[in-house]
Amino acid sequence: MHTTVINMKPNVAVVLSGCGVYDGSEVHESSAVLVHLSRAGAAVAIFAPDTNQLHTINHTKGETMEPNRNVLVESARIARGKISPLSNLKAADFDAVVFPGGFGAAKNLSTFAMDGAKMTVHTDVVRVVKDFHGHGKPIGLCCISPVIAAKVIPGCEVTVGQEQEDGGRWPYAGTAGAIKAMGATHVPKNVTESHTDMKHKIVTTPAFMCETKFHEVFDGIGKMINGVLKLVK
Amino acid sequence: MHTTVINMKPNVAVVLSGCGVYDGSEVHESSAVLVHLSRAGAAVAIFAPDTNQLHTINHTKGETMEPNRNVLVESARIARGKISPLSNLKAADFDAVVFPGGFGAAKNLSTFAMDGAKMTVHTDVVRVVKDFHGHGKPIGLCCISPVIAAKVIPGCEVTVGQEQEDGGRWPYAGTAGAIKAMGATHVPKNVTESHTDMKHKIVTTPAFMCETKFHEVFDGIGKMINGVLKLVK
Repeated sequence: MHTTVINMKPNVAVVLSGCGVYDGSEVHESSAVLVHLSRAGAAVAIFAPDTNQLHTINHTKGETMEPNRNVLVESARIARGKISPLSNLKAADFDAVVFPGGFGAAKNLSTFAMDGAKMTVHTDVVRVVKDFHGHGKPIGLCCISPVIAAKVIPGCEVTVGQEQEDGGRWPYAGTAGAIKAMGATHVPKNVTESHTDMKHKIVTTPAFMCETKFHEVFDGIGKMINGVLKLVK
Repeated sequence: MHTTVINMKPNVAVVLSGCGVYDGSEVHESSAVLVHLSRAGAAVAIFAPDTNQLHTINHTKGETMEPNRNVLVESARIARGKISPLSNLKAADFDAVVFPGGFGAAKNLSTFAMDGAKMTVHTDVVRVVKDFHGHGKPIGLCCISPVIAAKVIPGCEVTVGQEQEDGGRWPYAGTAGAIKAMGATHVPKNVTESHTDMKHKIVTTPAFMCETKFHEVFDGIGKMINGVLKLVK
């Protein structure tokens, strides 16, 4: 008997929202996503919306600065120049899609930072999430990005960590309430864990929703990436 | 007999040069440095010079863009806001110092990108390297940053990877020649390896001098960080 093993590299899209925790993609979450995908042998293409950021934050002060910046141009810093406009991303071309976190997900990909549960989601992000979900292809999200799944796929299960602040360890614990208000289920998890919604093929991990050590965020994102790749047919 | 174990956390300074491979610190090298230091239990403080970048590069095009940016302000994106001016960094306060790579090391911390072996090094960087070296404290560098050690500590041994381009795998292979021209010794290494100069306590790894996969760069930086921490008294 002969067995033919077809070694299919999973093909994964990563969607960025800028470069820097306070106005774009969280740098370390994005890097962890790319390191874990690389180790798993995935082929990766990176996308971001070609649009202005909500604003640009001076990360030494936490204050806005001028001039404003473009989400695609800044995301290219994380992508080492290899990046395409989000409008080009189609689920037909990929096996899975991953959204790192950072305030960019709540400011540039959605309006969560301003509007909470009443937020709207960037048109192309809605299209991409529905496209992957409609094709039965897995979606990975971390940190604050799971609010996007909660809004676009009502009734799904996601984690953004714990539901109490626990003395400052979970400074954004109120996010769980907004997720419930949008009609999704919140599943509390610790930072080194991920949660898989098997029905909707959504895999989430808290990442920097937790005030913790870099390697714990790195390891939690590893769980999320492995969860996503397990769901790739 | 009683044995007292004093659990001393190593205290490590990390010096950034902006945020983005083409005009600042390479994002993934910087993140890998912080993840490996975190896993090793090190306490970390991050520094960058409070000065203008040589220029700002649009990473989607590889072209300069206006206005120019400040090295400290951009580095704060990687540091998640917790960063100090390089002028404050003193070897007396730390056990080791680490310089991630990226063109920022060759444009903002030194003039290597313009002047090659005839380069000059930023005054505060010279002071910091000599200060740690003078105190017998280890210095870790990766990617293009080892040129700084080669210039400031003549006669030291460093690696920037291989000395031939090897079909595009080592696009900056000519750097080894510049290192020799500055009076240092170049030790060829692969991307998942590091080299330790025991005499000068300098630990280096090629990182993105190699056109390779993210996880191989991550692993090589892990070797470099472990090499640095082994030299901490």
